[in-house]
Amino acid sequence: MAITGVLRAAMMQLRVLDLETSVDFYTQVVGLFEVGRTSDGRVLLKAYDEFDHHSFVLRQAETAGMDFIGFKVASDDYLKYLADATKKFGLPVEEIPANSDQPGFGRRISTKVPTGHRVDFFADVEQSDPKPGIENPEIWTVEPRGIGVATFDHALLFGPSASETVRYFMEVCGMAAVEKGLLPDGNTLVTWLTCANRTHDVAVLEFDQPGKLHHVAYKLDNWNDIGHAADIMTMNEVTIDAGPMRHGVTRGQTIYFFDPSGNRIETYASGYSHYPDMPVRVWDFDHIGKGIFYYTRQLNDNFLKVVS
Amino acid sequence: MAITGVLRAAMMQLRVLDLETSVDFYTQVVGLFEVGRTSDGRVLLKAYDEFDHHSFVLRQAETAGMDFIGFKVASDDYLKYLADATKKFGLPVEEIPANSDQPGFGRRISTKVPTGHRVDFFADVEQSDPKPGIENPEIWTVEPRGIGVATFDHALLFGPSASETVRYFMEVCGMAAVEKGLLPDGNTLVTWLTCANRTHDVAVLEFDQPGKLHHVAYKLDNWNDIGHAADIMTMNEVTIDAGPMRHGVTRGQTIYFFDPSGNRIETYASGYSHYPDMPVRVWDFDHIGKGIFYYTRQLNDNFLKVVS
Amino acid sequence: MAITGVLRAAMMQLRVLDLETSVDFYTQVVGLFEVGRTSDGRVLLKAYDEFDHHSFVLRQAETAGMDFIGFKVASDDYLKYLADATKKFGLPVEEIPANSDQPGFGRRISTKVPTGHRVDFFADVEQSDPKPGIENPEIWTVEPRGIGVATFDHALLFGPSASETVRYFMEVCGMAAVEKGLLPDGNTLVTWLTCANRTHDVAVLEFDQPGKLHHVAYKLDNWNDIGHAADIMTMNEVTIDAGPMRHGVTRGQTIYFFDPSGNRIETYASGYSHYPDMPVRVWDFDHIGKGIFYYTRQLNDNFLKVVS
Amino acid sequence: MAITGVLRAAMMQLRVLDLETSVDFYTQVVGLFEVGRTSDGRVLLKAYDEFDHHSFVLRQAETAGMDFIGFKVASDDYLKYLADATKKFGLPVEEIPANSDQPGFGRRISTKVPTGHRVDFFADVEQSDPKPGIENPEIWTVEPRGIGVATFDHALLFGPSASETVRYFMEVCGMAAVEKGLLPDGNTLVTWLTCANRTHDVAVLEFDQPGKLHHVAYKLDNWNDIGHAADIMTMNEVTIDAGPMRHGVTRGQTIYFFDPSGNRIETYASGYSHYPDMPVRVWDFDHIGKGIFYYTRQLNDNFLKVVS
Repeated sequence: MAITGVLRAAMMQLRVLDLETSVDFYTQVVGLFEVGRTSDGRVLLKAYDEFDHHSFVLRQAETAGMDFIGFKVASDDYLKYLADATKKFGLPVEEIPANSDQPGFGRRISTKVPTGHRVDFFADVEQSDPKPGIENPEIWTVEPRGIGVATFDHALLFGPSASETVRYFMEVCGMAAVEKGLLPDGNTLVTWLTCANRTHDVAVLEFDQPGKLHHVAYKLDNWNDIGHAADIMTMNEVTIDAGPMRHGVTRGQTIYFFDPSGNRIETYASGYSHYPDMPVRVWDFDHIGKGIFYYTRQLNDNFLKVVS
Repeated sequence: MAITGVLRAAMMQLRVLDLETSVDFYTQVVGLFEVGRTSDGRVLLKAYDEFDHHSFVLRQAETAGMDFIGFKVASDDYLKYLADATKKFGLPVEEIPANSDQPGFGRRISTKVPTGHRVDFFADVEQSDPKPGIENPEIWTVEPRGIGVATFDHALLFGPSASETVRYFMEVCGMAAVEKGLLPDGNTLVTWLTCANRTHDVAVLEFDQPGKLHHVAYKLDNWNDIGHAADIMTMNEVTIDAGPMRHGVTRGQTIYFFDPSGNRIETYASGYSHYPDMPVRVWDFDHIGKGIFYYTRQLNDNFLKVVS
Repeated sequence: MAITGVLRAAMMQLRVLDLETSVDFYTQVVGLFEVGRTSDGRVLLKAYDEFDHHSFVLRQAETAGMDFIGFKVASDDYLKYLADATKKFGLPVEEIPANSDQPGFGRRISTKVPTGHRVDFFADVEQSDPKPGIENPEIWTVEPRGIGVATFDHALLFGPSASETVRYFMEVCGMAAVEKGLLPDGNTLVTWLTCANRTHDVAVLEFDQPGKLHHVAYKLDNWNDIGHAADIMTMNEVTIDAGPMRHGVTRGQTIYFFDPSGNRIETYASGYSHYPDMPVRVWDFDHIGKGIFYYTRQLNDNFLKVVS
Repeated sequence: MAITGVLRAAMMQLRVLDLETSVDFYTQVVGLFEVGRTSDGRVLLKAYDEFDHHSFVLRQAETAGMDFIGFKVASDDYLKYLADATKKFGLPVEEIPANSDQPGFGRRISTKVPTGHRVDFFADVEQSDPKPGIENPEIWTVEPRGIGVATFDHALLFGPSASETVRYFMEVCGMAAVEKGLLPDGNTLVTWLTCANRTHDVAVLEFDQPGKLHHVAYKLDNWNDIGHAADIMTMNEVTIDAGPMRHGVTRGQTIYFFDPSGNRIETYASGYSHYPDMPVRVWDFDHIGKGIFYYTRQLNDNFLKVVS
């Protein structure tokens, strides 16, 4: 098959300050569906157009932020390769048995990348409802609600040694750089990386604190959905950080907003399809504001400061 | 890299009855750009969001139809593999030197699949203008015109022994079946195949005449573009075959229309992203009308009869 | 005030064959809200963006069709003028007391126009919920559901002596002709009439049977809503007569579909704003197909035959 | 006819610092069409969906700002009434002969409202091209270009004694208040006024300097057009003041941006249709930020400060 190795960014476990408030927010406003809870009280959620058991986990904690991001890979063999190659790259590897902390998930390997983020990989995941139909399927099996996000899309990770995390994702995990933003000295500030055709499954930005989440994104279809999302956010008193707008980077149409714990979430739509024969698109330092905020053409105050 | 082997359906050479009328149609109405002509009078065209030299070739001929469909592959090594594997599968392989009949294209290998269609593969293609910018890029470098198609997307091929052509595309070329339509006896009538994430790069339908083209599709972004396309078609007296509508198959939003020679063209938008861990979606015979024409829920008269 | 006299087409009482099936259809699929029932079993409905008590009444009967269309006028004084002027025009006038058969409605006058349709006028209507907010209002107070129609829009009436009904609407009721469709002999087949800025509040087409309803239309905002409406129709097995498409007449974007009793309903969006200084737009007989069905450019079989 | 008196806001004469730069901006970026120039060097422009000779006049001057706003009325008789009623209200009236400074325009009467703005009224205007077709019309006769605005829509005027200007527009000109924004003391800060069905033809905000223009707006159809407008603005380095966003007031979807002279322009879409039986919608002081900037829910710094 033509897509191999790491298939896609497929999940995140997120820390939230108040669990039930957060569950309400993610189910009623964002439009995820609760598919279960763990014995230690975490809540498992998914979007309506996903087959996998869940793509989002909420864990109550003292501080907001991400516990880990998870990538689905093509096969158990590839997991084995990854375990070896990750160790060879010099990163730690933890083996996590099937159906331990993530119900419905097969065995995982877990590492910690140089930017300080825990990254998990897994090949086997059970399905759960809701999910797309496969016999004479309608366009959805449950009507999207609230913002109506369709699928997990990507995350932007902030941390030190970004170039090493990028090197790991590219050399070991086979991801490709799709776009880059440069510092004044020409070094790379931020890299957008794809597993396959998405404009990005993960992006990494050089930052002085490790393990920080800039945002996690779910997908919408188009600009009309983005406008609808903004309406829903206002009617639910959600704090919008920026947008509705377009990114110059990836051309995506987007809103950044905050969950009740201060985690930044994105609804992301459009964006081109990447192929490995495409050149990397580069934003020099003077244009990076336009790259991120295509309409105002400058970063807002929060962009390089507010993370969780 | 995570996308390997055959990257995508990337071009077609089409026969038209009157060359200049067709060039006007494809440039002024469909919105392709002429990038050159060959010494034997063929016209090379591309869409505004493509890097490759051209994705569409018009050749004046006595009858309409397709000369061949072309797929871009990841590497010259993969071309070598394909040549061998194609022969091993039992199909003929012709080697076509670089820059012979397709200016800007590296060497190709060419075969004839059981349904009677010529299929070419190539790894190296020069770039041409217009193409997307890569340094602080705007969202386009030339304003889309007419219908404003963005990229070559897919084709539906009609011919005998469809299951053998499908087997070739899957076993040799590494494509995946995304959706299927069944006959009353449960055998497969039509298969939608992807190279990577597209809902389909090529589809194949069992038909009694070989080498027939049902339609070739260029991509638009969304339903709004589809409506705009329909307006442009009416204002240019283009014959619409069906649409604006949605396909149940792939969920794509679409119009089928005819070029001045009677070749059926599609503008295709939306549709989900395929991943290799997704189950195949299946349409039984009683629902295949709904699968293709989601709103009328029955095939129109032309669908199984009019080909070129 | 600058809008005087007849303000708008504002309601219809419709006959349906099975009441509860119809209530389900209009509330769950079309997205109207039930606001009450009468002692004789009729069901009162409204759309989410209307202040008036109700805009739609379902009455169970042996045959489908319309009982009457209602227009709201600017004042009780205007009702008095209308009663006199209607009699002077030669049409019958019935006075209907407030809160008789239409709860929440003030007194009405009722006439029967030459095409055989009962037409009511009223100045005073109580409000009901849901309705738009007026203190720091959100964009809606209840989330639109199903197709999510916003407001009553217009109806197309079929009957004999259409030109006399049009003359009544223009000379007595102060409506303006916005567009016209002609017969081969240059006489008028159909006239689209406005009370104010809508492209049409009512249209009248010459037909050999009196009192027939071609369709009644509710408003949507835009083409995206039209596509969503088509999706909802298919998922609810609603029979679509035509569309999604555009009308050349009024430029409206539209779907014609049938309720469970065979009444044709329209979801109508876009269309320009009429002003009294605009010239009448005219469609000659050879182009009237394009005027109604802008994309196929010919009437479908149902258009001049299927009425209720 | 049901719309009488003042039909609509229909034109503005605007002062710009550099004429040719401004003509380029309004024709190439905004998408107006130049229809002529006057002997004193002013440039006459219109939008593609207007019949009237022109709706926009650019005059080179030392300072930006508006010379006057013009309203079209239903008849010359109404002009006579307006001249008398305006004088009776206590405002000056100047009679301007046909075809003097505004080619194609019949006679006008001109006054100066208490907020210090010159306001003209006229009944007769010649048509010019481009304009909508009226015989078997296509949806446009010239393809919209740039942002592609359709028609003149409204202006927001800033000046002292706003309540007196509002009283003039309502009592003399027959306009209706559609929405209002209040000061902390409950007095009115800003009133949105309609001539007929638009959510506003003109709005008036209390301000300490007379005759100021906050913005003049042209109409687009929908949110998709608003997104396209933002793209075009960025690609042409136009300064965006706010948006793409929605107003809570009128529900319009919008972008505020600046012309090269610093005049604020708006592209405005959607918004409900007003009728005279609708209650006035009111925004108290604590919610007025949300009323204007529905997504950020607070006025930006420019809103009450930057005028021309």
